[in-house]
Amino acid sequence: MIPWQESVYSDGTALFVSDPAPTVGETVSVRLRAYADAPVRTVRLRYLRNGLEQVVPARRIKTERGLAWYEARMPVTEARMRYRFYLLTEEGLYFYNQAGLSRSMPASIHDFALLADYVQPAWVKDAVFYQIFPERFCNGDPANDVRPGEYALQGHPTLHMDWDETPPAYETGRCLDFFGGDLEGIRQKIPYLKDLGVTALYINPIFRAPSTHKYDCVDYFHVDPHFGGDEALAALSRQLHQNGMWLILDISINHTGADHRWFNRDGLFFPAAEGAFPDPGAPERAYYFFGEGNSYHAWAGVEDLPTLNYTSQALRDAIYRSGESVLKKWLKPPYSIDGWRFDVADTFARNDEVQLSHALWPEIRRSIREEDPQAYILAEDWEDCAEYLQGDEWDAPMNYYGCGRPIRQFLGQPDLFLSRDEALREASRGLRAEDLARRIVQYLAQIPYALQENQFNLFDSHDTSRLHNDPDISPMAWRGAVYFQFILPGAPCIYYGDEAAIGGTLGSNEGCRYPMPWDSGFETGDAYRVYRTMARLKAAHPALSRGGMQILYAIGDVIALARSDGEEAFAAVISVSDREERVRLPLGAVGACGLESTDVMGEPLAWRALDERAVELTVPAGTSYFARCVMKEK
Amino acid sequence: MIPWQESVYSDGTALFVSDPAPTVGETVSVRLRAYADAPVRTVRLRYLRNGLEQVVPARRIKTERGLAWYEARMPVTEARMRYRFYLLTEEGLYFYNQAGLSRSMPASIHDFALLADYVQPAWVKDAVFYQIFPERFCNGDPANDVRPGEYALQGHPTLHMDWDETPPAYETGRCLDFFGGDLEGIRQKIPYLKDLGVTALYINPIFRAPSTHKYDCVDYFHVDPHFGGDEALAALSRQLHQNGMWLILDISINHTGADHRWFNRDGLFFPAAEGAFPDPGAPERAYYFFGEGNSYHAWAGVEDLPTLNYTSQALRDAIYRSGESVLKKWLKPPYSIDGWRFDVADTFARNDEVQLSHALWPEIRRSIREEDPQAYILAEDWEDCAEYLQGDEWDAPMNYYGCGRPIRQFLGQPDLFLSRDEALREASRGLRAEDLARRIVQYLAQIPYALQENQFNLFDSHDTSRLHNDPDISPMAWRGAVYFQFILPGAPCIYYGDEAAIGGTLGSNEGCRYPMPWDSGFETGDAYRVYRTMARLKAAHPALSRGGMQILYAIGDVIALARSDGEEAFAAVISVSDREERVRLPLGAVGACGLESTDVMGEPLAWRALDERAVELTVPAGTSYFARCVMKEK
Repeated sequence: MIPWQESVYSDGTALFVSDPAPTVGETVSVRLRAYADAPVRTVRLRYLRNGLEQVVPARRIKTERGLAWYEARMPVTEARMRYRFYLLTEEGLYFYNQAGLSRSMPASIHDFALLADYVQPAWVKDAVFYQIFPERFCNGDPANDVRPGEYALQGHPTLHMDWDETPPAYETGRCLDFFGGDLEGIRQKIPYLKDLGVTALYINPIFRAPSTHKYDCVDYFHVDPHFGGDEALAALSRQLHQNGMWLILDISINHTGADHRWFNRDGLFFPAAEGAFPDPGAPERAYYFFGEGNSYHAWAGVEDLPTLNYTSQALRDAIYRSGESVLKKWLKPPYSIDGWRFDVADTFARNDEVQLSHALWPEIRRSIREEDPQAYILAEDWEDCAEYLQGDEWDAPMNYYGCGRPIRQFLGQPDLFLSRDEALREASRGLRAEDLARRIVQYLAQIPYALQENQFNLFDSHDTSRLHNDPDISPMAWRGAVYFQFILPGAPCIYYGDEAAIGGTLGSNEGCRYPMPWDSGFETGDAYRVYRTMARLKAAHPALSRGGMQILYAIGDVIALARSDGEEAFAAVISVSDREERVRLPLGAVGACGLESTDVMGEPLAWRALDERAVELTVPAGTSYFARCVMKEK
Repeated sequence: MIPWQESVYSDGTALFVSDPAPTVGETVSVRLRAYADAPVRTVRLRYLRNGLEQVVPARRIKTERGLAWYEARMPVTEARMRYRFYLLTEEGLYFYNQAGLSRSMPASIHDFALLADYVQPAWVKDAVFYQIFPERFCNGDPANDVRPGEYALQGHPTLHMDWDETPPAYETGRCLDFFGGDLEGIRQKIPYLKDLGVTALYINPIFRAPSTHKYDCVDYFHVDPHFGGDEALAALSRQLHQNGMWLILDISINHTGADHRWFNRDGLFFPAAEGAFPDPGAPERAYYFFGEGNSYHAWAGVEDLPTLNYTSQALRDAIYRSGESVLKKWLKPPYSIDGWRFDVADTFARNDEVQLSHALWPEIRRSIREEDPQAYILAEDWEDCAEYLQGDEWDAPMNYYGCGRPIRQFLGQPDLFLSRDEALREASRGLRAEDLARRIVQYLAQIPYALQENQFNLFDSHDTSRLHNDPDISPMAWRGAVYFQFILPGAPCIYYGDEAAIGGTLGSNEGCRYPMPWDSGFETGDAYRVYRTMARLKAAHPALSRGGMQILYAIGDVIALARSDGEEAFAAVISVSDREERVRLPLGAVGACGLESTDVMGEPLAWRALDERAVELTVPAGTSYFARCVMKEK
């Protein structure tokens, strides 16, 4: 019996759709492949036109590398074309869509979706991101450091730290322990980043704000002077672009700081007569949710972060709609940023009786795209947020849900969300490979392919403890997490310092914001070598940016995934087993017949061919591989 | 090992949600139950508030009929509250939402959804519908019959048939073989219908039109004179309501007939100078899609059915928006219909470059509900159409997708859609019980519970061959289909004549529009007895209208489903096996410990208790049961 089911595959890449970004009126070819000797009799493409089912024959057009290709034509008559395949085989009728192959009719929500009204930020799928928490990355200009007592004068304590000190424990109040990092420091490190293989930066908030994290913004229209002011951003952006690199900035448009010019609760940064708080007649008062007297709604109850009220048309103008709006200003020259990362986007414009998120995101998207048609719209959401990922709202979330959270669980950590409930914490440790595979498919299958390719795949950030500082995570297990973020469709993001195995031992988030240990010699370490190898590999091999992903194996403690583009293929294998495992990898499903003798990190690979479709790989306990495949002849 | 997983259950009924139709601001209790001795340690309710996860404890509040109940409180802060359960057990962490119990985190799309902005047509879940094709049901007033030659004068052949003749084969042209059925005939049969147990009528189109089916409407504002005109509708409606019965009418607002007053292609029914077709300056021209000259777009290419163009604001006014609009007129007295069934709703307002469906349905809904807050909005869609079933568009589709299509397949027929492709027809026969169960869950789990209860569960209609006329479907298999439509949440619909095992042997749809055989003595037949028993059973037992549905068994050739409301429970068992099967029914999951000695049709039941949770039922080859359960002590 040929295990032909494992070979049935299609996706939204150019290999399978003749034009992955079509215009209405065009006719595209849509393809599916399967083992050449699979018992497939008839393949049909099924799509909807004006809501009505159309079933058209797919012809077998060629055989290549042991795989037969089937092709059908589909007129693109609507902005969103939904399609699936019907396969008549000697074993009966099968259905195939983004949820996989099935004997039972699949849900429409999982059908492939070809979008004609969506502009993909095409650079993202080729990118290797690097996230910088700027206060802690590099102090390029000590002249702009926070002065001793600067904020103390305004009623806040201020700590001035030496670069190689250990940060103090995070306090729920304002974070005012300054190390001096700034944009000039980032600019100076561009050669370092480029050498590491980074092609795009995601920088945490830089607009004027007292705290180290700057989510308590006091002025959206200026870069904090301690980060070097607006000119430093212009200089950084210019030099990044000259180096072929991309830049996105972080912003919370959900709330401001209580000291924002519009709010100005304490009159600390702006004349005390300005702003919504003191003046009952101030127009900015409508930007916030005021209740009785001067009571107001604040994000998560944190009084320093008053929530913005988007029922205000003037606020919409100020934030995203007018030509001088916050979001547009920084997309324009000389800053010319390439996208926005939106803080707490999951709760943006949602405040019990006010539920405007799905009304506003399409507007925000249009405003941003007027300035830059390929600007990346990246949203903070840790959950299954497919409702925002249909093409008219976000390009991608921070992919905790489909990447960081489940891979951490697979490696044995408790889930980042479930563990907030003490009773569930321990039980949320560990995930079987089957469940990890299910999670990947469940998440991606709801999303049009053009958006799958935008995924921002991370496991560490300024909001998580760093994986490598968990004493139960071995360096080899950590590699598995890196391989996972590189094998998934989309762009991986390296959190600054992960490549340096940076410390971070406090019991809170602050433990993930240590200063970058520039003088520690980390460039000789394993973490650096892994990231540099992977980043350069991705740049050199289109299969890892433009190829599709297939699940090769997912049983018990071992998962194996492949990326391939028809010309090349790579396999990531991650084992959390405490013993040696022998796993059958159906490499024939990606047109390959074997693996190279070592993986990309130089680890020797012990494998043997089982037949022309599969190899058996021996995986020592707790070992991860990222291996290049040997392709079959065309 | 206790098979406790089978007992975990919740739904959106009043048993599990303290207020299934809450208002924003209210706090509701949400409940889950499981075997009292299940190894459940901790239950949490998880919901989203403003997009953010809230996890709250569910307390074990009571044990009843062997089931433990867990309850948590949830503030209704938004119009749509999405929730799921976390269960910490001795076997690890489980998730439970509308897709069932799972070890892996479920998709949000399958979470329970409690709607605060949705008015359920609450009468529907209690209803037993009866669909009437009025030209063939009963000739109550021969004086209004189509006159010999009446349409022939207008260029169409007209056939005048005796009531007991066999209808001629359906031709793709106009259906003009008249038997004389009318609304007065329906009115006269109200006692018959009431005795059968019918509580609601769905009548196929009755507005003025030449054909027998009247989808080629020439005047939306008048009932066809051959059906008795407007007065006959007023009289019928009045008498139905006096008898506590409900009435919905069928309409195509997607297209008119080519002879409609607005179009008037051939000047047959209205003065030749009127309408869009002859007059290039007529305002009604904008109601249609005219191309070059007098070319126009027609539904499915049928030139007699020109498609309406909803880019026209005047058309929107005429059809649904103004106080005198078509949809509103018939909802008002003296007609006072209780809802609309929309023909070809799947393709309504979708015409390649015009894609207005999701823009218009919410408007149409609001217009209808202004007239009647509980009017039923029933749409023709044969596919997975969950995108329309979120509360702001349709109340329900004709449930072919989740009822008629899969139950026919399970009984051995080819799928109604797949079989349109000759190559797929035979392979689409048969469905394993697992796939049938998956189909039910897949369909319902995407829909808020308030809409699950609106489902219009049918297998026969004016668009299908009648199941009982398939020589391969035994009377007992047919019973299985009836049981299936009665056990699913929602309302079953009897297609006129099914209770009479009416004939219909032509190879086309016309075979399902035979005249009702009033004098055949069918009231002594099995079909009549089954429907009358089931309809009356539903009226007498709230479990069958207000209860929730659970899948008890789904393996191979046997499926068993239960409905229960905590006080009573019923089980439907359908076997398509060619041999005797012994099936384990976990009746404990509905609080029951056994079955009555015969089923509701008097068939003896051979079962024995396996333990306190389950019974073993012996099901002879190809047998279906609808059985009342013996409940455990409270």
